[in-house]
Amino acid sequence: MIKVGIIGATGYAGNELVRLLMGHKEAEIKWYGSRSYVEQKYASVYQNMFEIVEDTCLDDNIEALAEQVDVIFTATPQGYLAGVLTEEILNKVKIVDLSADFRIKDVSVYEEWYKLEHKSPQFIEEAVYGLCEINREKVKGARLVANPGCYTTCSILTAYPLVKEGLIDPNSIIIDAKSGTSGAGRGAKLPNLFCEVNENMKAYGVASHRHTPEIEEQLGYAAGQEIFVNFTPHLVPMNRGILATEYATLYRKEDGTYPTYEEVKAVYDKYYKNEKFVRVLDKDVYPETKWVEGSNYVDVNFKIDSRTGRIIMMGAIDNLVKGAAGQAVQNMNLLFGLDEAEGLKLVPMFP
Amino acid sequence: MIKVGIIGATGYAGNELVRLLMGHKEAEIKWYGSRSYVEQKYASVYQNMFEIVEDTCLDDNIEALAEQVDVIFTATPQGYLAGVLTEEILNKVKIVDLSADFRIKDVSVYEEWYKLEHKSPQFIEEAVYGLCEINREKVKGARLVANPGCYTTCSILTAYPLVKEGLIDPNSIIIDAKSGTSGAGRGAKLPNLFCEVNENMKAYGVASHRHTPEIEEQLGYAAGQEIFVNFTPHLVPMNRGILATEYATLYRKEDGTYPTYEEVKAVYDKYYKNEKFVRVLDKDVYPETKWVEGSNYVDVNFKIDSRTGRIIMMGAIDNLVKGAAGQAVQNMNLLFGLDEAEGLKLVPMFP
Amino acid sequence: MIKVGIIGATGYAGNELVRLLMGHKEAEIKWYGSRSYVEQKYASVYQNMFEIVEDTCLDDNIEALAEQVDVIFTATPQGYLAGVLTEEILNKVKIVDLSADFRIKDVSVYEEWYKLEHKSPQFIEEAVYGLCEINREKVKGARLVANPGCYTTCSILTAYPLVKEGLIDPNSIIIDAKSGTSGAGRGAKLPNLFCEVNENMKAYGVASHRHTPEIEEQLGYAAGQEIFVNFTPHLVPMNRGILATEYATLYRKEDGTYPTYEEVKAVYDKYYKNEKFVRVLDKDVYPETKWVEGSNYVDVNFKIDSRTGRIIMMGAIDNLVKGAAGQAVQNMNLLFGLDEAEGLKLVPMFP
Amino acid sequence: MIKVGIIGATGYAGNELVRLLMGHKEAEIKWYGSRSYVEQKYASVYQNMFEIVEDTCLDDNIEALAEQVDVIFTATPQGYLAGVLTEEILNKVKIVDLSADFRIKDVSVYEEWYKLEHKSPQFIEEAVYGLCEINREKVKGARLVANPGCYTTCSILTAYPLVKEGLIDPNSIIIDAKSGTSGAGRGAKLPNLFCEVNENMKAYGVASHRHTPEIEEQLGYAAGQEIFVNFTPHLVPMNRGILATEYATLYRKEDGTYPTYEEVKAVYDKYYKNEKFVRVLDKDVYPETKWVEGSNYVDVNFKIDSRTGRIIMMGAIDNLVKGAAGQAVQNMNLLFGLDEAEGLKLVPMFP
Repeated sequence: MIKVGIIGATGYAGNELVRLLMGHKEAEIKWYGSRSYVEQKYASVYQNMFEIVEDTCLDDNIEALAEQVDVIFTATPQGYLAGVLTEEILNKVKIVDLSADFRIKDVSVYEEWYKLEHKSPQFIEEAVYGLCEINREKVKGARLVANPGCYTTCSILTAYPLVKEGLIDPNSIIIDAKSGTSGAGRGAKLPNLFCEVNENMKAYGVASHRHTPEIEEQLGYAAGQEIFVNFTPHLVPMNRGILATEYATLYRKEDGTYPTYEEVKAVYDKYYKNEKFVRVLDKDVYPETKWVEGSNYVDVNFKIDSRTGRIIMMGAIDNLVKGAAGQAVQNMNLLFGLDEAEGLKLVPMFP
Repeated sequence: MIKVGIIGATGYAGNELVRLLMGHKEAEIKWYGSRSYVEQKYASVYQNMFEIVEDTCLDDNIEALAEQVDVIFTATPQGYLAGVLTEEILNKVKIVDLSADFRIKDVSVYEEWYKLEHKSPQFIEEAVYGLCEINREKVKGARLVANPGCYTTCSILTAYPLVKEGLIDPNSIIIDAKSGTSGAGRGAKLPNLFCEVNENMKAYGVASHRHTPEIEEQLGYAAGQEIFVNFTPHLVPMNRGILATEYATLYRKEDGTYPTYEEVKAVYDKYYKNEKFVRVLDKDVYPETKWVEGSNYVDVNFKIDSRTGRIIMMGAIDNLVKGAAGQAVQNMNLLFGLDEAEGLKLVPMFP
Repeated sequence: MIKVGIIGATGYAGNELVRLLMGHKEAEIKWYGSRSYVEQKYASVYQNMFEIVEDTCLDDNIEALAEQVDVIFTATPQGYLAGVLTEEILNKVKIVDLSADFRIKDVSVYEEWYKLEHKSPQFIEEAVYGLCEINREKVKGARLVANPGCYTTCSILTAYPLVKEGLIDPNSIIIDAKSGTSGAGRGAKLPNLFCEVNENMKAYGVASHRHTPEIEEQLGYAAGQEIFVNFTPHLVPMNRGILATEYATLYRKEDGTYPTYEEVKAVYDKYYKNEKFVRVLDKDVYPETKWVEGSNYVDVNFKIDSRTGRIIMMGAIDNLVKGAAGQAVQNMNLLFGLDEAEGLKLVPMFP
Repeated sequence: MIKVGIIGATGYAGNELVRLLMGHKEAEIKWYGSRSYVEQKYASVYQNMFEIVEDTCLDDNIEALAEQVDVIFTATPQGYLAGVLTEEILNKVKIVDLSADFRIKDVSVYEEWYKLEHKSPQFIEEAVYGLCEINREKVKGARLVANPGCYTTCSILTAYPLVKEGLIDPNSIIIDAKSGTSGAGRGAKLPNLFCEVNENMKAYGVASHRHTPEIEEQLGYAAGQEIFVNFTPHLVPMNRGILATEYATLYRKEDGTYPTYEEVKAVYDKYYKNEKFVRVLDKDVYPETKWVEGSNYVDVNFKIDSRTGRIIMMGAIDNLVKGAAGQAVQNMNLLFGLDEAEGLKLVPMFP
C-alpha cells in the first residue's frame, strides 16, 4: 500500500481527495493535515466521512510527514509549498502539489500574476506539469508534480489537439469559462454566501485571472510559440463543474476552404481516442457539466461556424475531480506505476 | 457473474441502478429495458454513460428476459409488474420490484390508495418487503422482493427502534418529509420544470400520499398494532435527498420522567450499531441530505423536548440510492448470498 | 413626507426596507445606518441600488437620528436597541424594531432564550407586538413597535383563527417550518456558503430556536392560556420564502364528529376575508413560497385528516417582506395613519 | 386608461406583463388570451395572481380583440402574428409583438433561421424594432412594434456605443451569453425539468441560434455595414437573468495605442448617461444578473485587455423584464406618449 499524506485535507479539494482515496485499492491515507482543525476529528469537519474516516486532523509538518509517507498531496494556498520545500524532502517522498507554486516555468510570470515572491525557484525546472494526457511520460519519473488548475485543465484539453496540429490561430483563442462555486473554496467570504451566488451569474477576474498564464504557457508549448489568449471566468450557481466555451479562428486549407467536421474530428480522435478520461462526444452533442459530475472525465466537442471562419470548442469537467483531486490521483498512479485509472473508475452521477 | 435485466432503465432510478451496477464486481447488466427509447443507445438517453454503456435499449418483454438473466429489477410505474407477473417467471428468475405493487399486504388498501386494480394478488403474500435492516433474513430466501419506497425507507428507519421498543406512542407519529425533485421522476410535467421548482417550496399529497399506508403497515408490525400516522411530503429545490422530521409523544417511564438522551441513544444503537448503512450521528449533530448524497447511508438522530413531552427524530437518505437503486442492489446482494455492501461502498460526495 | 432612518441598513432586511421605501409615496429615507460600511456609498454595498440610492452609509447614532427623522427602523442584532433606548428618544420619534428585543413580555423568558441581559426592560410593557392583522388598533397609537420575527409571523397567522376560535388543542401544535437562506443574514459564515446550502436540507435549532417562545406567547393569548408547541426550523436551498406546515389535534364537535372543511374555512374567512395581505387559498390548493415572493402576502390553507383526527395547516410568506421589511412598513403606515398597503402593493414575482 | 389585450398571457413573459401592468397607472388589462387555458381563471394558472386578477382566460381572437382594446401584446410562438395580422387590425389597434415575426427586415433571413414561411411580409417594412434606447423616436409613431428578443436586447446594448462610434471591429465580435431557464418558456419539455437543469451548465444552439441574425442586423446598422458575429447561448441553473460577455478587437488609435479606459467610458456615457434604464457601472464593477432582477435595467461595463488588443464588454438584464415584458411596456409608453418609465420604476430585488 502506498502511504499518503494530505496537507490541506479540509478544503473542498482535500475532501475530494479523501473521497477518491477511500476507493483506491493501493493507497492509504496516513495523515490528514489541516492547520485550521488540528486535533479535531476529520469526520466532524466533513460529516460525509462519519464512520468512514476515524482519524483526527494533524498540523502541517511536512518534514515529519516526509518520513512517514510515500506521497504528499499539498492542497494548500499558493506559496505554502514553495515556502517549505527542500531537497531533503524531495529525496524522501513524492509530491503532488495542487497549488500553483510549480506550474509556471518563468518565475517572474508567477510572481507577477500571483503577487508573491517565489521562495524555492530552484525546484521549478524539475517540476513536471501534471496534465496526464499530455505529459504522461514525464510524470512517471518525477519527484514533484505540479497538478494543473481546474480552469486550465479544462481549457487546455478542449483546444489542445487543434493547437498542436495547427488548425487554429493560437493567438485568436478566447476562452469563456463557467465554474461552479466549489472552485472558490470553503473560506467564509461574503461573495460566496448562498444568497449572493444563487440566482446570480457574473464574470470575475476579467483579463486578470491567474490561470491565464498557465493556459498560455501550455498551449504555447503545443503551438511552438509564445501566445496570448483571453480567458474570462464566470461564477455559476452550482456546486461543481466547469464548462469552457472556446473560440478560435480556423486556418483555411490550401484550397481556401475551412476544415470539415470530419477533418477536425479526426484530429481530436488522434489525441483522445485512446484516452480513458477524455470523451469526444458525438456530432452536435455538446458537453454539459452534469454529465461528468463526480467523475474524472473531460467531455469535449466542437462546432465549425463557416459564416465567421471560427470554431467553437467546448469542454466540461468536474472541477474537484479532473480539475483537482482526480487528476492528482491520476498523477499518483503514474508516479507509482499503477493502473492510471485506479480509484478513478467513477461513473458520473445524474441527476 | 449475476446476469441482470432492468425494466424501466431510463427513469432516474433506472439510471442510478446502472451507475451502481457498473461498480459491482459480481453483476453484469444484460438488458436495458425502456419502452420509451427502444432501439436507442442507452448512452444517448443518459449521456453520463457515454463510452461506459454501449448497449441499446430494448423493449420490456419480461418473459424473454426471464430466460436470459438471474435477476430482474422493475423500475416501472405502479401496476406494471402486477400486470405481467406469472409463476413461470418467478420460477426462473428473482425479481426486485421498485414499484409499489407488492409492498402492501392488504390488497384493498393498495387498490384504495393507488386507485388501481391489482392484477396478481396471489403473489402478494410471498413477496418480501425489502427493507434490509429489518427483513434481512426473509429477503435471503425470497423470489420476489418489494423494494420499499423512498419516503418510506427514510421514515421507517428513522423511527423504527423507538416504535419497536415501545418508547413512543405510535399513533402520535407525525412525519414531515422533504424530498429533492428526482423523486418526481423524469416525466416532462409542468410542475417539475426548473422554473416551477427552483426558489420554491411546497407541500403536496397532504393527508393522501401513497406512501402513508406503507409506513403505517411497517411501523404497525413494529408496534404490534394497527397504527395511523400523519405523513406530509414536500418538494425541495434540489436534485437528490430526503429529510424526514418526525414527531412523537414519548411515553413516560414508571417514575414519571421521560427517557434520557442516553437511554434513547442506547435503543438506536441496539438496532443500528452493527448496520453498515445506518449511521446514528453524534449528539446534537442533525442529519443533512448532502452528507449522504450519492451513498447508501441513512443518517439518523433525535432530540428530546421535555417541554412538550415529544421527541423529534430526523433521518436523511439519498432518495435514488438507499431510497431506490442502492437498496435494490442491497436486496440483490442478499438474494444471491453476496457481501451485502458489494457495489455500495460509496463515499458520500460533498459538496 | 415621513422622514425615515434605518439602523442596520446593510443587512438583507435593511436592503429590503430600502427597496420597499423607494416605492413608498409618503416616506423618504434620510439615514442609512451601517456600522460595517460607514462612509461607503450604499450602492457600493448593494449594487442593485446603483443610480437609485446616492447616499452614503452613516454610523448608528440613534440620538442624533431621533432629532432628524419621524420614524426609525432598527434592523439590528438582538440587544442593540435595548442597549440604547431612552425615554427621550421615544418622545421624539417612533420606532419599529425588527429585532427581538421588545417582542416578549416576560423579560426572563427573553433572557433565557436569547442568553442576553435585557438592558431596558422598562419599555417592554408599552411595546406593541406589530403583527398588524391581530394588533392593528394597538399599533396605531404606539411609540415602539416590536416587529415580529419571520418564522413567527408565518407560524402564528397560519394557526391563529383555529386557536382563537378553539377548534384545535393549542398544546398539540407542531410547527415544521422551512426557510430560505436569506433568513440567516449576510454574515460571512461557513454554514451559509453556497456549497454548504445548495443541494442540501437540514433541521437546526431543534427544540431550542428563539422564535419558539414568541410563537407560544402570541398563540397563548389567542388560546387564553399558556401553551407549549414544537417548532422546528429547516434551512432550504433558496434565497427567500418561509413555508410553515403545522399539525394540531382537532377538537370533536358535540356530536362527536370533526369540523367539516366548510366549517374550518368559515373560521379562516371570519378573520382573513377582509385582510388584504392574507389570502386563504381555494380548496386543495396549498401554499407555495414562490407564489408570494417579493410581496407582503401570507398564503394559508389547511387539510383535515379524519383518519388521525388532526388538521394540517400551511402558510407561506416571503421572509424578507411580510417576515421583516414589509411588515415593518405596514406598521409604519399604521403608526402614521396612512393607507396600510401604501408601498406594499407588490405583485408576487413568478418565476 | 389604455385598454390592453394580451395574447399569450399564460407564458412566463405573459405573466410578467400582467405583473408589470398591475402597477401601471394608465393601463388596464381587458383580455387575458390563452389558447391552452380558455375559460380557466387566470389566477388558477398563475397562483401569484390570486385575489389580484379575477379574470378568466379567453381564446385568441385577435379581430374581436382589436375592437375592444387600444393595444395588443402578442407573447406568442413565432408565426402566430404573421399568420393573422391584417391592415384592418392595424388600423384599429397598436400592436407590440414579443415574437420574432417582424424583427428581421429581410424575409428570407427570417425564413431561413426560423424554418417558417412568413405569412404577412407586407408589414415587415413598417414594423419598428422596439429597442427603445436606439429607436425611441421611430417607436413613437408606429402601429406595429417588434419587441426585441431577450438575448438580443442584452447583446446589442452591451456593444452598441462602441460599434456605433467605430472603436471595435464589428466582425470580430464574439458574444458568449448565459441565460436563466425562464427564457425556455413554460412548456413541459424534458430538457427544462428541474433535475436536468439544476447543477448543470451547457451551451446550446451553437452557431445556429435564431437571435444571431437579429443581433447582426441591428449592430450592422450601427456599424454601417453587413456584419457577422459569433453568438453562443448557454443555459444556467437560475430562473431569471441574462449575462452577455462580449469580446471584440479594439481598433488602435492613430498613434498606434489602444483607447484608454476613460476614452471608452466616455463613449458609453455619450449614449447612456441620460438613459434611465441603462446603467454603466463604475470601473472594475462587473454586471451580475442578480443586481437587475425584477427590474428593467441593463447593467453594462467593460475591460480593456491590451495584452490581446481586445475589449471585454459585459451586460446583464432580467430576461423577462428588459428582455421581454418590461421593454414591451416601455414601447407601449412610447406609443401612447406616456412617461417612458411608467410602470417600470422597479427596484431590483436582492437577494
